[in-house]
Amino acid sequence: MNKTILLNNRPEGKPTVSNFEFLTDNTEIEIKKGEILLETAYVSVDPYLRGRMSAAKSYVPSFELNKPVQSGVIAKVIASKNENFKEGDFVSGMLNWQTQQVSNGEGLLKVDGSKAPLSTYLGVLGMTGLTAYLGLNQIGKPVAGETIVVSGAAGAVGSIVGQIAKIMGLNVIGIAGTDEKIAMLKTKFGFDAGINYNTSKDINADIKKLAPNGVDIYFDNVGGPISDAVFFNINRFARIIICGAISVYNETELPTSLSVQPFLVKNSALMQGFIVSNYADKFPEAMKQLSTWLLEGKLTYTETIIDGFDNIPNAFIDLFEGKNKGKMIVKI
Amino acid sequence: MNKTILLNNRPEGKPTVSNFEFLTDNTEIEIKKGEILLETAYVSVDPYLRGRMSAAKSYVPSFELNKPVQSGVIAKVIASKNENFKEGDFVSGMLNWQTQQVSNGEGLLKVDGSKAPLSTYLGVLGMTGLTAYLGLNQIGKPVAGETIVVSGAAGAVGSIVGQIAKIMGLNVIGIAGTDEKIAMLKTKFGFDAGINYNTSKDINADIKKLAPNGVDIYFDNVGGPISDAVFFNINRFARIIICGAISVYNETELPTSLSVQPFLVKNSALMQGFIVSNYADKFPEAMKQLSTWLLEGKLTYTETIIDGFDNIPNAFIDLFEGKNKGKMIVKI
Repeated sequence: MNKTILLNNRPEGKPTVSNFEFLTDNTEIEIKKGEILLETAYVSVDPYLRGRMSAAKSYVPSFELNKPVQSGVIAKVIASKNENFKEGDFVSGMLNWQTQQVSNGEGLLKVDGSKAPLSTYLGVLGMTGLTAYLGLNQIGKPVAGETIVVSGAAGAVGSIVGQIAKIMGLNVIGIAGTDEKIAMLKTKFGFDAGINYNTSKDINADIKKLAPNGVDIYFDNVGGPISDAVFFNINRFARIIICGAISVYNETELPTSLSVQPFLVKNSALMQGFIVSNYADKFPEAMKQLSTWLLEGKLTYTETIIDGFDNIPNAFIDLFEGKNKGKMIVKI
Repeated sequence: MNKTILLNNRPEGKPTVSNFEFLTDNTEIEIKKGEILLETAYVSVDPYLRGRMSAAKSYVPSFELNKPVQSGVIAKVIASKNENFKEGDFVSGMLNWQTQQVSNGEGLLKVDGSKAPLSTYLGVLGMTGLTAYLGLNQIGKPVAGETIVVSGAAGAVGSIVGQIAKIMGLNVIGIAGTDEKIAMLKTKFGFDAGINYNTSKDINADIKKLAPNGVDIYFDNVGGPISDAVFFNINRFARIIICGAISVYNETELPTSLSVQPFLVKNSALMQGFIVSNYADKFPEAMKQLSTWLLEGKLTYTETIIDGFDNIPNAFIDLFEGKNKGKMIVKI
């Protein structure tokens, strides 16, 4: 029995389970020459998928209605008529939210579960790690001794950004939403300091206290009022990486915030949107560095693993409540 | 009789004449070895000076109260005890709003009134031209065939940006505030199209009509709602040069506007604050190119020349009413 999750209708504001439809099919799947049959093992749910569920113009193309939702998936090859893959191989790729599916192998990477747990190829050794490493290096251009602020710091990308920044000798301040997350940033991920945006009386003042010499790099996963507070503290020639805007993904009205232009012109600062797929030529170099750090124990990670295919929509929705710690993955 | 204009108190909102104080001194000025005596010929008034009149933290340092205001000035050497300058030389530099002043020559450039009118060394061959050329090239990185939008297009910087962009083969759209200015953009400066923001019913829709393939570069001199309208039209990998924010210089409350972050992340776009003094190493190359274009007749300019030292404050204030066409200069 093969299950599929379709996008039933486009979310307005926060996504709900009614945006999705489950389809069940008992037909036996046959593969042709050149094809492989995949059984899904792990599914990555990520905030950016919310953008793909809207019809709005975006260079991340919109999902079609009544078609399967797609995200990063680790799958096992259970039948192969393609010489590049054999039964028992595991692959990662952008695949359907589907228990079984056919592929011609295009865009799939083989992954080795003996070198690192399979789920890490969706996280620290997958798009998440690449986003953290390449966003920080390609736009942030960090220099030892500088100060970085990371928003969404306890999230999948944020927690890796902070660790890489520490490896590179920066003063690292994380912003997250619970005391438990702040404690984890410091004890598990080695951040120098953390700010709980839910209990802070004045995020701007808290940053000033923790970064008396100002902020050189801001790795922004959230946007909104948290970012506004950071702008008051940026240094001359600051670099601001716009990696995500989880605080506004669900807004139905276009959000407003402090005008950034006066901050940018006053500080000759740079702000740039980052999408990891634009940096595909840098993936091998980045993967090599991330694997090395992981093996050396310099990089650690947190996963929130949810069990069961049927829970994929809920796991996705919970991202917007901050219910995950680190990478949110559904195990099938 | 030597006259000086001091900053009497800091403007709140729009500057007024009462922010300035005139001082008159009849003492004869004596110069020492190494010094020169300068008589002011032309004074540049520029929107960015408003920022220097505030006490707010800025990397363009604040003017001190009860001290002379400074800006770009062309002056004649009327006495010299410095071997690098002789009587009759003309120089440009950041100098006091003062009819006569003493200098040790530091930071002054000799300018040649026989090659180009003296006032152009404050405009197209001065900081204005350098700002246009270097802002466009260093951040905008224009490519022939691309589309650029210039706000404050009839201003000193904007009108030069548009012309350089035309020389480089771009489709050039200017935004300005009167039909007369829009006509001038097209007939005098060779812009492809113009939008009058005061009469446009929907700036966003007007840009869409004039730039059906989207906007690759936005050279922003104004900020505020005009910029918001541009964001809806930016292309993937767009570059946004924040050169000024005249619409907010006089705001007493921090201005808010559409959140730019979602636009930047969706389009992998870059937004960077530009201050010309950061690019001093590129001045010689830029000056050479600007002079060549000017001599070849490829570059033209407009000046609004106001007569009389006493009118400097009013000329400055009029900038915020858009009363200037092109570079605003006071002739002494």
